[in-house]
Amino acid sequence: MPSTPSKELFAVDNPHPGRDYEVRCESPEFTCLCPMTGQPDFAEVDITYVPDAKLVELKSLKLYLWSYRDEGAFHEDVTNRILDDLLAAIAPRRMTVQTRWNVRGGITTVVTASHPG
Amino acid sequence: MPSTPSKELFAVDNPHPGRDYEVRCESPEFTCLCPMTGQPDFAEVDITYVPDAKLVELKSLKLYLWSYRDEGAFHEDVTNRILDDLLAAIAPRRMTVQTRWNVRGGITTVVTASHPG
Amino acid sequence: MPSTPSKELFAVDNPHPGRDYEVRCESPEFTCLCPMTGQPDFAEVDITYVPDAKLVELKSLKLYLWSYRDEGAFHEDVTNRILDDLLAAIAPRRMTVQTRWNVRGGITTVVTASHPG
Amino acid sequence: MPSTPSKELFAVDNPHPGRDYEVRCESPEFTCLCPMTGQPDFAEVDITYVPDAKLVELKSLKLYLWSYRDEGAFHEDVTNRILDDLLAAIAPRRMTVQTRWNVRGGITTVVTASHPG
Amino acid sequence: MPSTPSKELFAVDNPHPGRDYEVRCESPEFTCLCPMTGQPDFAEVDITYVPDAKLVELKSLKLYLWSYRDEGAFHEDVTNRILDDLLAAIAPRRMTVQTRWNVRGGITTVVTASHPG
Amino acid sequence: MPSTPSKELFAVDNPHPGRDYEVRCESPEFTCLCPMTGQPDFAEVDITYVPDAKLVELKSLKLYLWSYRDEGAFHEDVTNRILDDLLAAIAPRRMTVQTRWNVRGGITTVVTASHPG
Amino acid sequence: MPSTPSKELFAVDNPHPGRDYEVRCESPEFTCLCPMTGQPDFAEVDITYVPDAKLVELKSLKLYLWSYRDEGAFHEDVTNRILDDLLAAIAPRRMTVQTRWNVRGGITTVVTASHPG
Amino acid sequence: MPSTPSKELFAVDNPHPGRDYEVRCESPEFTCLCPMTGQPDFAEVDITYVPDAKLVELKSLKLYLWSYRDEGAFHEDVTNRILDDLLAAIAPRRMTVQTRWNVRGGITTVVTASHPG
Amino acid sequence: MPSTPSKELFAVDNPHPGRDYEVRCESPEFTCLCPMTGQPDFAEVDITYVPDAKLVELKSLKLYLWSYRDEGAFHEDVTNRILDDLLAAIAPRRMTVQTRWNVRGGITTVVTASHPG
Amino acid sequence: MPSTPSKELFAVDNPHPGRDYEVRCESPEFTCLCPMTGQPDFAEVDITYVPDAKLVELKSLKLYLWSYRDEGAFHEDVTNRILDDLLAAIAPRRMTVQTRWNVRGGITTVVTASHPG
Repeated sequence: MPSTPSKELFAVDNPHPGRDYEVRCESPEFTCLCPMTGQPDFAEVDITYVPDAKLVELKSLKLYLWSYRDEGAFHEDVTNRILDDLLAAIAPRRMTVQTRWNVRGGITTVVTASHPG
Repeated sequence: MPSTPSKELFAVDNPHPGRDYEVRCESPEFTCLCPMTGQPDFAEVDITYVPDAKLVELKSLKLYLWSYRDEGAFHEDVTNRILDDLLAAIAPRRMTVQTRWNVRGGITTVVTASHPG
Repeated sequence: MPSTPSKELFAVDNPHPGRDYEVRCESPEFTCLCPMTGQPDFAEVDITYVPDAKLVELKSLKLYLWSYRDEGAFHEDVTNRILDDLLAAIAPRRMTVQTRWNVRGGITTVVTASHPG
Repeated sequence: MPSTPSKELFAVDNPHPGRDYEVRCESPEFTCLCPMTGQPDFAEVDITYVPDAKLVELKSLKLYLWSYRDEGAFHEDVTNRILDDLLAAIAPRRMTVQTRWNVRGGITTVVTASHPG
Repeated sequence: MPSTPSKELFAVDNPHPGRDYEVRCESPEFTCLCPMTGQPDFAEVDITYVPDAKLVELKSLKLYLWSYRDEGAFHEDVTNRILDDLLAAIAPRRMTVQTRWNVRGGITTVVTASHPG
Repeated sequence: MPSTPSKELFAVDNPHPGRDYEVRCESPEFTCLCPMTGQPDFAEVDITYVPDAKLVELKSLKLYLWSYRDEGAFHEDVTNRILDDLLAAIAPRRMTVQTRWNVRGGITTVVTASHPG
Repeated sequence: MPSTPSKELFAVDNPHPGRDYEVRCESPEFTCLCPMTGQPDFAEVDITYVPDAKLVELKSLKLYLWSYRDEGAFHEDVTNRILDDLLAAIAPRRMTVQTRWNVRGGITTVVTASHPG
Repeated sequence: MPSTPSKELFAVDNPHPGRDYEVRCESPEFTCLCPMTGQPDFAEVDITYVPDAKLVELKSLKLYLWSYRDEGAFHEDVTNRILDDLLAAIAPRRMTVQTRWNVRGGITTVVTASHPG
Repeated sequence: MPSTPSKELFAVDNPHPGRDYEVRCESPEFTCLCPMTGQPDFAEVDITYVPDAKLVELKSLKLYLWSYRDEGAFHEDVTNRILDDLLAAIAPRRMTVQTRWNVRGGITTVVTASHPG
Repeated sequence: MPSTPSKELFAVDNPHPGRDYEVRCESPEFTCLCPMTGQPDFAEVDITYVPDAKLVELKSLKLYLWSYRDEGAFHEDVTNRILDDLLAAIAPRRMTVQTRWNVRGGITTVVTASHPG
C-alpha cells in the first residue's frame, strides 16, 4: 500500500462477523478547500459503524481522508461522499459519518449522515 | 449577495436529497434589543435540520442573524420567528432552533422550538 | 409591578400558541431557610415548560423566587410548591421544576417534579 | 435522634404523595473496609428515588452511610444492601442506588442497583 | 491465586442473584502489541455487565488484562475476545466491552461489543 | 455559641504558631442586598490567611457571613469590611479576602483585598 | 443617569482608599463593528484595577461598553481607548484591560493593555 | 511490613541524592474524625518534597494516612502533624503538605504547611 | 491584497505606540507536511507580541500561515522561521511563537520560541 | 534506524542554535514493571528542554521510552535515569523530565527532575 493520498479504501475481514458490534474512528485532522473562496477548511471527522463481513483498513482510511486536502468540497456534500465511499468499500450493517467544521463567519457547522438514512 | 444585514434567507440545492441527514449551524454571536428596556440582549443560536430539496446558504444565514441587531425581540418570540423564516426559506423535513440567552435578573433563559412541533 | 419579593406570578400571552415549544429558566440564586435549624439553604432552580396560552413573566418570576428568602422550606416541599404555583399561574402543557441544593451533612440533594407527574 | 453511626433509617411523611417526583441524594463520603485485606475502600454513593408515602430523613441517612465505616463490605453486596435497607424503610415507588469506588489494582468499579430491578 | 499474567478468569458467587443490577469495571491500563508493526498499543477498557449467578473476581480480571501485554492484537478482535472470555467465565445476563485506543496515524479508534449482540 | 447570625468572630489558639502556614476557607453561600435596589446579591467568598497566635473559629465564621443576609452592602465595601473584621478578630500575619459576585447588568465583579495591602 | 449608550463614565468614592485592593469587572457582552467590512465583531472584556480615590460606577460602565455597538473599532485600538477612558475617569493606581475577540478568518485575537504600561 | 494502620513512616535511600528533584504524592482518601462532633471528616492530601538522603516508602505512607481514621483531628493541626512526622522520617530538603477538606457548614477548608516555613 | 497563500506579511501602524501592550493571535488551523514522510502534520499556532511601531495585518497573517500547507517543515524549524519572519515584518518589542503539534508516534510536541530569546 | 525498543537516543542538529527556545515532548504511553511486585506500572512522561547544538530525534525517543516496557523501575529512579540519558545524548542548555504515575494503593505519584538541578 502506498503512502500517498488516495481515494481507494481497503477492506479487511471482520474477525467476528457473527456479532453486531460497533467500531468508531475519530480524526481531528481533516482539511479541504472551500469551493467558494479556495481557502482551507478544517474539520473533525467521526466514523461509526457496525461491520458486516468487512472492516475498513485504517491506513487506507488515513490516506483517503488525506485525499481531500487539495479538493474543493462543500460541508454537506463531502460528508455524504465519505459515507457513500465507505458504504461501497465495506458494506457495513449500519454507519454514521459526522463532520464538525471550524467556525466561518461566526458559524460552526456540523453535518451528520447515516446509513440506513 | 450584499454584505449588509438582511431578512432574506437564500437556499441552495441539497446535493444528497435521497438521504435523511442532519445539518447543525451554531452561532454564539446573536444580539438584539430588549423590547422592555431597549438594552442589548445576547444569545447563542443553534439551528439543526434535516434538509429536503434545499440547504440554507451560510452567508445569508449570517446576514439574517445580524438583521436582529437593532430590533426589539422577546426571547420566545424571536426563536419562533427564526424557525418560521427558515421553514419558509428551505422547507426542511425537520428543524429545531434553540436560543440560549445571557443571564438577566439572575435568570438564564433557553428557548427551543421545533418543526414539526 | 413592584420590585419587592412577591408570591404573585404574572403571565404574558404566548406569541406562538400554535406550536409546542420549550422554555427553560435557570436561576443559581435561590435561598430559603432550613425549617429544622433556621439556617440558610441555597439551591439552583431550573424551570422547563411547554407553554399553552401563557408565558411566565420573567421579572415576576425573579420576585417570586426571592419571596422564599425568609421562609422555612423543606427541599421536597418547596420544589412541589414552586411547580404548583407556576401551574396555577400559566397552565402550561408540560412543566418540570428541578432544585439542586448545596451540600449539607456531606449530602447533596436534587429534587425534580413534573406536570403531568 | 443520636449523632452516632446507626443502621436505622427514619422516614418522614411525603408532603406531596399525589405526584410522582424524584429525589436524589449524592454523598462523596462513603467508606468501608475491604473484606479481603481489611484496608479502607472509598466510594461516592448516589440514591435516586420516587417517594410514595415516605421520604428518607436526611440526618438518619448520613448516620446510616457512616455505619459502614468499620464494616467489611464487597462493592456489589453493599450496594444491594443499601438499596434493600432503603426499600424497607420508605417503600418508594422506584429507587436506584449507585456506588462509584476509588481505583484498586488499576480498576475503577461502579455498581448500580434499582427497584423494581 | 498467582500474581502473574493469566488468561484465567475467576468467578465468585453473586450475592444478590434475584435482582438485575449492573457492575462496571473501568481500566485505563490496557496495553498490547500492534500485530502489523510489533509496537505497543494502549487502550482504556470498560466492562459493564448484569451478573447472573456469578461475578468476575477483580484480581483475576486485572491479571487477565495484563496477559495481553506481550500479545499482538487487532483492536476489533481483542475487544470481542475479551467479551467472549468473560461470557465463558461468568455467563452474565448482559455485558458490554468497550476499548478506547490511543491515536495512531491521526485516528482514535473505539470498539464496543455487547452480548446479546 | 448561638446559631443565629452574628458579627462576632471567635478565635481559637493556633496549635502551630512557630510555622508560617496557610489556611483557606471557601464559601459559595454569601448573600446580601444591593444598597441601590434592595434586591439580593450573591457571591462566593474566599478567605486565605497565615495565622499568628489565633485561628478563626469556623462556626463563628459561618454565622458572621450569614449576618450580611439582610444588610445592604456594596461589593467593594463589604470585601474590605470582612477583611477588617477578620484582622481585628485574629490578627493574622497575612490575609486575603476575595469575593466573586454573580453577574448583574451583564458584568461579573471580583474584589480582592489583602493585608498587608 | 440615563439608560442609553454613553461614552460618559461615572466615578464613585472608594470607601477604602487607604488600602491597595483589586476590582475586576468581566463582561462577555461587548460588540462593535469591523472598520474594514462593517460587520459585527464580538468580544469579552475584562477590566482589572487597583482604585485610588475613585471606583468606576457599574451602570455607567455597562452603558459605556454598549456605546461601541454601532462604532467601527479595530481590536488593538478599542482596547487602548477603553483603558484611556477609564484612566481619565477614575485615575486608578494600576489598571489592565483585556479583550478576547471571537474567531475571524480562523484566528482568535486577545489584546491586553495596562497602566502603568 | 504489616498491613495495619501505623504512625511509623519508613524511609528508603534516594537513588539520586546529588540532584534537587521533586516528588509529589496525592491521596484523595484521607479521613479522620471531627474532634468537636465525633463525626467523620474527609480530605485530599498532597505531599510534595525535594528529598535529601531518603525517600518516603509508599506503603508505609498509605498505612500512616490510614492511621488517622479513628482519631479526632482539627484540620490545621493534622496538616502540621503530617508535615512534622514526614520531616522526622526523611528530613527532606523542602516539603509542602496540603489538605483539602470536604465542605462543612457551607465552608470548604484548605490548609497548606511547608518546610522551611 | 490577494487571497492566495503568501509568505508576505503586511504591517499596519500601531495606533498606540506610546504604551507597551500585548496582542495575541491564536490559530488552530496550521498544517504542513512532514519532511520525513511527506504526510500532513497539524498544529495550533499562538503568536503573542508587544508591538513597537507596527502591528501585523491579520489577513496577511492568515495567508502566511496558509503558505506552509504544501511545504515540508520540521516542528522546531518552522516555529523559529515563523518567529523570524514576523520579527522582520513588524519588529516588535517582544514576541513569542508557540506551536502545539498533533500526536505522532504517541508523542505530542510543543515548540516555543521568543524574541529576545 | 530499527523499530525495536532501544536505549539508544539519536541527536539531530538544532537548526536555530543561536536562540534559546523550548521543545516539549509529551507521551501518555509509558509503562514499566514495579520492582517490588513485578506488576505493570503506567505513567505519562513530559520532557521539556532548551536545546543547545542538538535536538532529540523523535523516533529514537519513542523507542527509548518503549525500552522500559519489560524493566523493573522505581518511579523516582526512572525519572532521573531518563533525564540523565537525555542529557548525555543531546547536552541541552536546560531540561525537565516529569513522570505522572497511575494511582497505586490510593496514591498518585508525580516525579519532576531538572537540569541544572
